[in-house]
Amino acid sequence: MFSFKHLNRIVSLLVAFSSYVRCDNTTAPTRFGVIVFPGFEALDVFGPLDALNLNSYDHSMNLTIIAETLHPVRTNHLPWIKYHVNSTFGAEVLPTHTFETAPPLDVLLVPGGLGTRAPSPLLNSTIAFVKERYPTLQYLLTVCTGAGIVARAGVLDGKFATTNKRAWEEIIVLGPKVKWVPKARWVVDGNIWTSSGVSAGIDLTIAFIASVWGNATATSIANGMEYVAITDSHNDPFSGLYNLTMPAVQP
Amino acid sequence: MFSFKHLNRIVSLLVAFSSYVRCDNTTAPTRFGVIVFPGFEALDVFGPLDALNLNSYDHSMNLTIIAETLHPVRTNHLPWIKYHVNSTFGAEVLPTHTFETAPPLDVLLVPGGLGTRAPSPLLNSTIAFVKERYPTLQYLLTVCTGAGIVARAGVLDGKFATTNKRAWEEIIVLGPKVKWVPKARWVVDGNIWTSSGVSAGIDLTIAFIASVWGNATATSIANGMEYVAITDSHNDPFSGLYNLTMPAVQP
Repeated sequence: MFSFKHLNRIVSLLVAFSSYVRCDNTTAPTRFGVIVFPGFEALDVFGPLDALNLNSYDHSMNLTIIAETLHPVRTNHLPWIKYHVNSTFGAEVLPTHTFETAPPLDVLLVPGGLGTRAPSPLLNSTIAFVKERYPTLQYLLTVCTGAGIVARAGVLDGKFATTNKRAWEEIIVLGPKVKWVPKARWVVDGNIWTSSGVSAGIDLTIAFIASVWGNATATSIANGMEYVAITDSHNDPFSGLYNLTMPAVQP
Repeated sequence: MFSFKHLNRIVSLLVAFSSYVRCDNTTAPTRFGVIVFPGFEALDVFGPLDALNLNSYDHSMNLTIIAETLHPVRTNHLPWIKYHVNSTFGAEVLPTHTFETAPPLDVLLVPGGLGTRAPSPLLNSTIAFVKERYPTLQYLLTVCTGAGIVARAGVLDGKFATTNKRAWEEIIVLGPKVKWVPKARWVVDGNIWTSSGVSAGIDLTIAFIASVWGNATATSIANGMEYVAITDSHNDPFSGLYNLTMPAVQP
């Protein structure tokens, strides 16, 4: 009988083969880091991490979770956000390193969320970390309003980028020198990948995996997540919905 | 200029209106719990929680994160799983309550992941908690192989249910009295909602929100997540991919 075990073996062989036929000279990244801050959007982090985690079964990779301190970081309860009702609905994630102790990284992922709207100076250390680390990174990835943090670090200046479409106007003012792309599921400019809102981070990650480890690996991971990935970066179902009226800058 | 603030106000009014026109006698659930165990799949938890979190801005809801102990719970590093390569790629989440201290709940969410393949007796307390609590719940939701845990608790006996399509054969043997549905993005039988693999949990949750709080609320949340939801439970893009040969039982 054809079992899960057989299917797994076939998938592993296909993945190994696709890695073998990738004969360019780039080195696949192994050292991943993700920044978390109070009020980060959980799916911005755990969508991409879930896809990368599946990739880590076949490719050696490690993950560092980085925050200002080692205290647990909550996804909600932000004193500067007025909630409409009295809810207590969030989770706490444990950082592994602080901005001071984080090891060298190949890839840094910056999520969004209501926490990116923190009043100054709450995000200063986060922004400073992005600014300090960007020159040493192989890739910088942002999800949703995480692009606003990266824009404030100045590393998007002169580059094409996108962000959350509902929060568009709030975020683009944070990067007046950025060439913001209003209709894009995600944008790649050099080694910076920026995605549209929340779930677009999963599509960015699947596309990133395809770019680094090949299409067969990316498809296998999307299938493993039973996720119908948007694989065309120009296919943005939400730009029109939020009536973005900016000039259509396209990379 | 039409701004984010105006859009938010319009959405809030629409949501309030849709709640008003929901004139049946059911009471919307407020007390949510999610079980976490070593090796739970992060997206199984944080996809649904992200959607529910957005709902909690307009509807009073609280969340309890429940595990065997209050120690941080990892998404990976399971001693009984053989990894192909040397990777360290996971995150730790903090429970708020144990199986002994968890408060009364209206909704319990059970995720899947490689942790559901833990050798006996590691999951016994988790299974016992589901068995003990099910009679007191308004709704029981499972994502992915979480259906295997719930099946082992006996609460799916005689009911229609679905699970991860790649791990199909592994899971259905855990519930020989369950009417497993091989082609379904999710299945509802009475007050039990079971979804297909990983990302299907987001679709289940959007559909659950539509069922309880109305379509306008669910659509607003999916749009906020910039998520293209599968809204037809019979639309299962992955059943065929994994060549499921079981008789097509449909509720």
